[in-house]
Parts: sequence; structure tokens; C-alpha cells
Amino acid sequence: MKLEKALTLLEAVVPSRHVDPLLTYVGMEAKEDKLSLFGSDGTLDLELVLDYPVAGEGRYLVPRAPFFQLVKGMEDPFLALEGRELKAASGALKAEIRLAEWPERPRGRIPREGESWRSREVEPAVLAELFSKVLYAVSREDYRGVFRGVQLEWREDGLRAVASDGYRLAMAWTGEGPLEKAVVLQASSVALLVRVLRSLEAERALLSVEEAGKALALEVEEEGFSLKVGVSPMEGTYPDYERVVPKEFVLEAVLEAPSLVRALKRALVLAYRDNRRVDLLFEGDKVRLFTEGEYGKGEEELPAKVTGTLPPVAFNGQYLLEALEAVEGEARLRLSGQTTPALLEDLGARYRAVVVPLRT
Amino acid sequence: MKLEKALTLLEAVVPSRHVDPLLTYVGMEAKEDKLSLFGSDGTLDLELVLDYPVAGEGRYLVPRAPFFQLVKGMEDPFLALEGRELKAASGALKAEIRLAEWPERPRGRIPREGESWRSREVEPAVLAELFSKVLYAVSREDYRGVFRGVQLEWREDGLRAVASDGYRLAMAWTGEGPLEKAVVLQASSVALLVRVLRSLEAERALLSVEEAGKALALEVEEEGFSLKVGVSPMEGTYPDYERVVPKEFVLEAVLEAPSLVRALKRALVLAYRDNRRVDLLFEGDKVRLFTEGEYGKGEEELPAKVTGTLPPVAFNGQYLLEALEAVEGEARLRLSGQTTPALLEDLGARYRAVVVPLRT
Repeated sequence: MKLEKALTLLEAVVPSRHVDPLLTYVGMEAKEDKLSLFGSDGTLDLELVLDYPVAGEGRYLVPRAPFFQLVKGMEDPFLALEGRELKAASGALKAEIRLAEWPERPRGRIPREGESWRSREVEPAVLAELFSKVLYAVSREDYRGVFRGVQLEWREDGLRAVASDGYRLAMAWTGEGPLEKAVVLQASSVALLVRVLRSLEAERALLSVEEAGKALALEVEEEGFSLKVGVSPMEGTYPDYERVVPKEFVLEAVLEAPSLVRALKRALVLAYRDNRRVDLLFEGDKVRLFTEGEYGKGEEELPAKVTGTLPPVAFNGQYLLEALEAVEGEARLRLSGQTTPALLEDLGARYRAVVVPLRT
Repeated sequence: MKLEKALTLLEAVVPSRHVDPLLTYVGMEAKEDKLSLFGSDGTLDLELVLDYPVAGEGRYLVPRAPFFQLVKGMEDPFLALEGRELKAASGALKAEIRLAEWPERPRGRIPREGESWRSREVEPAVLAELFSKVLYAVSREDYRGVFRGVQLEWREDGLRAVASDGYRLAMAWTGEGPLEKAVVLQASSVALLVRVLRSLEAERALLSVEEAGKALALEVEEEGFSLKVGVSPMEGTYPDYERVVPKEFVLEAVLEAPSLVRALKRALVLAYRDNRRVDLLFEGDKVRLFTEGEYGKGEEELPAKVTGTLPPVAFNGQYLLEALEAVEGEARLRLSGQTTPALLEDLGARYRAVVVPLRT
């Protein structure tokens, strides 16, 4: 079971194709009843060490397909390293897999003794949620630099994840306090990290950042099983995003986020494809949605607790929807004006997002 | 609910893109509390008539996106035809969808009065199974003519579906007896027909073939709901496939099809990609699988009741696997020689397949 779990984790990381074909292999080292496995996508390294007996010793690369599609499905396989071959047997099934040399290469992304790291304990599920709540807001455009990443902030009382594409901003946090350190992680590394974090059963992990901000690491120790992840942060500095968070508001509405998400999905069927425009009119005890596009037009209303007045505000419905999807229950939407940024807050969790209305 | 069901059926048929853009619309006709809906992919027509009140009368085309993504999700919507617009309202949601003209076009695929059809009652689930069991064996190559279709045979005591790509052959049937009539249906029409048949709740349907073999039709009548499907068969005649079914055998093996399917999947991980070769050696109470490829080699054995002897036989493992997947329980594999066709039979259902060993 430990081997299967290790291979499942590695399968999430090791790419099936890559410009560097070595990355499509799994590193394997057998020594004194310890089996070490290593995989990387080039930005994130994963190293697993498990108590698993292997006949013979050595250090090789195993091609991903037979390892993940064949050995992973074997029940407690007998493993042996013999003359550049990995022998795997389980029940009536025997396989001999040809191995490749494992060239020595620097693995700076995984912490080594003697380096200076700042560490803190985290719950894997909580860290996964921080990242996954904001990941939608990163930019998909190649030229957007750090906006293609998620900033992870080390704060006095906890962590904060921030993402933005310049038009919208999302943040989720476990605690506040002064900023101590920050690294920007590529969206693809973050997505991988979330997959790894969600596969973990451990309730505690050690999250570390290298003092110069050159690497982020995650370590988990379990009985007979240890895991290390190392991630290379992106170059560049994240802008001061706090200044775009509006502070003064003319209207506030409290509503059920999932209901508004469903209504926005319906509205988006009819909305123009280019700007996905949906107009929101807040009045009394409801919010009304108006939309129009190639197919025709639509209108819907939902209950909302509204304070303040404002003429209809036009949003990119898709952007508003994505910001709302991170909220499970009640949300508070606060508007600063018809064309100035709006602030969305989760009333039950530490998450907020800034969405800018369309300039109509 | 009836409307939602009708739209779900149409959604399976109406393509989202097509060289003929009219096919991406749903035909709609409202008249005297009857709502008729029509959709086609160009080879298969679906016509549904339901008791559903619509304010106003008319005959229009509705674009697929708002119909399937918006109206389908509405609970018992109020529908009205008003000045080239379909108004749909449910709860707090109102939509106005622009309509297009419905040009008159021949709809020869759906039976009309005065034509000569040969009909028989079928169970939709049984007909879906006949088709889905053989569909894997059709050719994907453009130039293979009728081999790109499934032959549906009208026999004295039932129906038979046959598919082949020239290298393998599959057939499933409900009854035998002399051949009365046959039509070859395009694989894409068959796949659509299977989706429609599987969505039906009715236990009985009327299957008809036009006397000259120019169309196949399926009709279902339920309280307040009727469905008609018309399919254009392919041109061309299916070859006499019976002559490739082997009649004399030197070896017979009875085994659990799902176990062999799983073992073949494992073997295929290691097999060469070009011919997917897996060697089968039958002896005593087992079958042994041998495979070799770029990654290395593998071996596995399974229990089997074997009669007769033969040296190892090489198969395209993928072909053998696909033929076996149609069998739920015990299968009998009968070999006529090392390089001559083998016959696979389901011992619990009316299905058989011919698979030819690789020429090694």
C-alpha cells in the first residue's frame, strides 16, 4: 500500500511528455531496506523514502509507463534490482523493466543540511484550500510575469495566498500580522502542489522557505514513509496589491454565493461572448440580473440584503462567477461605485476578492 | 419533466458544430397544445412530439445553446411564441430567445404514411446492447467503405448486428433464422442511436426498415410523448462474412473473460506499440501470456480449461482485449491454428467474434 501511495503521488508530478526526456522517468534508489523514489516536472521536485525491501542495491531511472501502469497495480510486489533491470513480481505476474542510468544533477529544490530555512507547521488540507481558492485569478497570458503565479506570504500569525491577473485579485489566509517573507510560485507548480497535498493522509506537514527566497519546501514524516517537496519560486516581485482593495463603499449586499453562481451560469448562456456582460441591479431585498447577447436576453432575481443604492453595475459575469465559486455559503459584495472596484468577502471563511466592473 | 427528457434526447443528436449550420438548431413547432421538436446530425433524425402547452403557434428554429443550457434546466417553464421570439419563464427567471426561420426540407429519414415499411417490436435496451457489443470492430479508416458501418440484419426470429474492419469480426444477435433484409448503418449513427435508446424509459419500441432498404426507423409511443428516429443507411453491400468464421478447431479454452481482459491490459503496458503483440500459450489448466517491448518483458498466467495443444499463438493484444470486453462472464476461445482465425464466444450471451492471430 505504501508503494502504491508513493507511485500515485509521483504520477501526479512526473510528466508524460517533456522537452527534457529525463523528467519522464522516475528516479529509484534501493539501499538497506529503504526505497527512495524521485520525480520532478522541472519546477517541483518530489522525493519519497519508504521502508520497502528491494533485493539488490542501485540507483537508476525507471520509465514512467510500466512503473505507473503496471507496478502500481501490483499487490505488495517483490522487487529486485538485477543487472540494469527492475524485476517486479506479484501473484502470477512477472515483469522485467529495463532501467536507465541516473545522471547526477543538482537538486536544489529539496532542502539539504546546512542551508538556512524558515519553517512552520501546516495542515496539508488547509494549505491546499488556500491555494485552490485563489488559483482561478492568476493570469494565463505568457507575458504577464509574476501575475502568472500565486504569491505565498509568510505572516506573523499564518499564511496568505494571493493571485491576480491585473483585472481581479483573490486572497485567502490562515492568519494576519506583518509580512515576514513572500515567494511567488508558478500556477502550474501550485496546481501540482495542491494535488500532492490532497493525496496526503498526514494531518501535519512542515512548510519551509529558504531564507533568500530561493526555494519552498514541504516535508511529511510518517511511520516508514517520508515525503519531501521542493519548489523553485518565480523571479520577480509581486506588486503592492493592497492599494487596489477598495476601502470605502456606497452599497453592500449579503447573499447566498451558490445561488448567485447558478444564476450567473444561466445568464452567461445568453451573454455576449466577448465581454460576458451581466448587469446587476441591487434594490431593497433583492438583486436583479440582466443579460443580453446574440441569442436574446434574460432576467432573473435573487434575494439579497441590500444597504445603499446604485444604478445597475455591469460585470464580466465569468469573473464574478469565478470569484464567488470560492465561497461556500453567505457572501458580502461591497461596491465602491459603478465603475470602481468591488470587494467580495466570504462571511464564513478567510477569503476575499476584488472584481472590477466593466467600463461600459 | 417531459420537456427536459425531450431536450436531453435532442442534445445527444444535435451537433454543436456542423458544416451545415442549420443542423446546430432545434426545430420547434407549437400547435394545439402539442409541442414538436426536431433535431438531426445529418445522418439521423429525431422527432419528438409532446403534450406541452405553448402560448402562440408557429414553426421555428431555436439555437441549441440557450435551449439546452437554459430552458432544459428550467422547471416546467412557461413557453410562448411571440413575434419571432421564444419566451421562456420559470420562477424568477425570464428569457427571450431569438428564433430563426425553419426552411422546408425533405425529411425522408422519418417514416411517412403511404410508404412501405417492415416493422417489428424491440426492447430499446436489447437493441442498444446488440449495437454496443459490436461497435468496437468497425473500421476507423476513411477508405474502408461499408466496413465503417454496422450491418443490422432482419432475420426470421430476430435481429443480428455485425461489424468488421477486415481483420476482425464481431456479431451479436437476438435470434437466428434466414436473412430477410439488411441495412448498413454508419458507426456515428449507431453510436447516436445507442445514446437515444439508452435514454428511453419505454420497454417497447417499433423498429422498421423501409422495403427498399433506404431508411431505418424507430418509434416509441408513451402517454403524452412520442418519439421517432429515422436513419439513412450507408450505400454499398456488406461482404459475405460467414465464410471467415472458422468451423474446425485444434484447441479450445474456456476462461473468465474479465480476468483475461485485466491480464491483457497489464501485458499491453509492456508490448511493442506497433503491433501490440501478446503471445498466448495454452496448456493443461492454464493460459500463459508473454509480452516484450521497449520497456522490457512480462509474463502472467491465468486458469483456463484447455482441450487440445498448439504452440504459442501471437495476437494483437488490443484486438483480443476489445473482443473480450463484450463478454461479461465465461468465454470460449477456439483456435483453428497458429496463424488462422480464432473464434471467441460468450458462453452466457449471444455474441461471437473472430480474431486473426498476428503473422509473425
